[in-house]
Amino acid sequence: MASRAERLMANAPGMDAIVIANGGESFIDSTYRYLLEPSGGVFEDCYIVVKKDGTQDVIVNVLEEESARTGRGDVRVFHDRAELESILKDSLKGCGKVGFNIDSVPYSTVTGIKKLTGYDYEIVDARKAVADTVAVKDSREIEAIRKACGISSQVARELPDYLSEGVSETEVATRMEMRMQELGGRGLAFDTIAAFGPNSSMPHYSSAGYRLKRGDAALFDFGCKWGGYCSDLTRTLFLGRPRAELERAYEVVREAQQAGLDAYRDGAAAKDADVAARAVIDGSEFKGRFIHSFGHGIGMDVHQPIHVSYRSEQVLRAGNVVSAEPGIYLPGIGGIRIEDTVLITEDGCERLTDFPHEMTVV
Amino acid sequence: MASRAERLMANAPGMDAIVIANGGESFIDSTYRYLLEPSGGVFEDCYIVVKKDGTQDVIVNVLEEESARTGRGDVRVFHDRAELESILKDSLKGCGKVGFNIDSVPYSTVTGIKKLTGYDYEIVDARKAVADTVAVKDSREIEAIRKACGISSQVARELPDYLSEGVSETEVATRMEMRMQELGGRGLAFDTIAAFGPNSSMPHYSSAGYRLKRGDAALFDFGCKWGGYCSDLTRTLFLGRPRAELERAYEVVREAQQAGLDAYRDGAAAKDADVAARAVIDGSEFKGRFIHSFGHGIGMDVHQPIHVSYRSEQVLRAGNVVSAEPGIYLPGIGGIRIEDTVLITEDGCERLTDFPHEMTVV
Repeated sequence: MASRAERLMANAPGMDAIVIANGGESFIDSTYRYLLEPSGGVFEDCYIVVKKDGTQDVIVNVLEEESARTGRGDVRVFHDRAELESILKDSLKGCGKVGFNIDSVPYSTVTGIKKLTGYDYEIVDARKAVADTVAVKDSREIEAIRKACGISSQVARELPDYLSEGVSETEVATRMEMRMQELGGRGLAFDTIAAFGPNSSMPHYSSAGYRLKRGDAALFDFGCKWGGYCSDLTRTLFLGRPRAELERAYEVVREAQQAGLDAYRDGAAAKDADVAARAVIDGSEFKGRFIHSFGHGIGMDVHQPIHVSYRSEQVLRAGNVVSAEPGIYLPGIGGIRIEDTVLITEDGCERLTDFPHEMTVV
Repeated sequence: MASRAERLMANAPGMDAIVIANGGESFIDSTYRYLLEPSGGVFEDCYIVVKKDGTQDVIVNVLEEESARTGRGDVRVFHDRAELESILKDSLKGCGKVGFNIDSVPYSTVTGIKKLTGYDYEIVDARKAVADTVAVKDSREIEAIRKACGISSQVARELPDYLSEGVSETEVATRMEMRMQELGGRGLAFDTIAAFGPNSSMPHYSSAGYRLKRGDAALFDFGCKWGGYCSDLTRTLFLGRPRAELERAYEVVREAQQAGLDAYRDGAAAKDADVAARAVIDGSEFKGRFIHSFGHGIGMDVHQPIHVSYRSEQVLRAGNVVSAEPGIYLPGIGGIRIEDTVLITEDGCERLTDFPHEMTVV
């Protein structure tokens, strides 16, 4: 079996090397850990240079040396800028085209490395090579995502117990996050969204102090990490029977999700699932109310570049892990979204999350 | 009082505009929320253009419109790339020099905006302008940091209760993170470091399954967020009396921290604190064992660019919030670090964290 670094370079025709650079703590390129597979470490301001032959130089400051040696590749340690300069010069010697994962590396790093080496190589966009490599998960990765999904699904099943009149969004979100930790999650995939009543009509709402009222929708979009891998799911419930419009929207979203899931399989165009789900919603009285795409890739980052939208030109492959998350948003009234984390298989797909999808009135 | 945007442009002589661009969820530039001051929202792939006159265009996709309107500035909404292009062209019209916060924006965004507008402006490094602006905290920001520090300090005080023979690093880290949530923290400032025994000699160790033994050092570096602002503190304890070398190292670190704190005040060179603390350690038998710098800025990010190192050329100002964190690391044996979050004041400094600093043997 080819190593991750070898698969990366096979996906990068014409490139002499690919540099993966971690910035500070808010600029982490998960590709770094993906290629290194260390047992620990932070790797701020560290680099990996993957060579054409699939070997890699792991270039770390002395603080990360011990951690780096638990991973794969040839560890090269620098103590100061001068040492970093000489290692990078050596690693990139003779390269004509050097790829960078340009969505995930600061501008200063790409321009800084070039300046430091003094080389005149061409900076090449390696986003697709990285995306194509990380998109197909191996069995260990799928197992980690399955664990993360199991933890979050348990919390999704418990949600009815967390809801009562007057409870605030933040209170429920905090309880959910603590519970995911308690069940073995290590970190969140993203900040938990708990959106009640009219707030649920904003797909990217941040939870605040709104208190749950009878008839409100209560939308929860959340996920945890296990072994560095993410889960992502959304469950929408109601406190007391909601207005008829929301009940109807719930049924349409459920139907739309199933239509999308039916289009998920190895070899299918990614856009097919979005188109199928959108057709259900746009064929209802909620035409135009599904204002985002049907799904995205999931892995070490909760959003990986598989785009399940009607504009996508990607093809799904067995081993891809993607979300399935149609929604209907009615400004001022509320929103409905149902989301699962899904594994693409040879002949269809498997939901890795598992919680009741029927309408739940608490 | 000048607005944040006005202060930013006052710190950016020669620039016609500064663009603050948020990438995806792992590429967040906190400057975005700092300038916008919204009550919620995520703002992935959104932009702020701050003009020479201190006004700002808040350029958001339709998903973020409602959230953006809770903040400051002129909200301009795009539905697709064509609309984004025309808004950016309008915002940046006539600019000769455009600043970017180049450590905190992906390479693809800086090059992509220039391509989208088709303008021939010069890309200018605005890091210092941003850093100088966010470094001086106003009273609301200090209040938020104080709350975050209060929550973490409470957990630091409880740490002796969490320790017993055989407990694992991960178990204690999880309990700490849950407790910070319970006490009102919203999110972590960074992944909690719990490092026992020899692991504590790695400043950037990630917690794992090591179980606490008698005589071990137990080092905890952690912090939470409150209102979007971070705390950062480190407490090192022992399970049973440690070897004499570690006891002695503990006393030297305490003394070094006090020496550094004594050098913290408005108008002081940032390097003075590092030099003072380092002199204490290098004047002991632990010469050369303090392998990182004394401190860094703290705010919406746990690491902000105030560098308290012996190489720093920065000057401290009242309203700066910085860490004070000397350490001694003995490979294979263990490490000692004590860290507080500290507010620089007119005539000295104030510790915002508060936990017992004397040697604690559980």
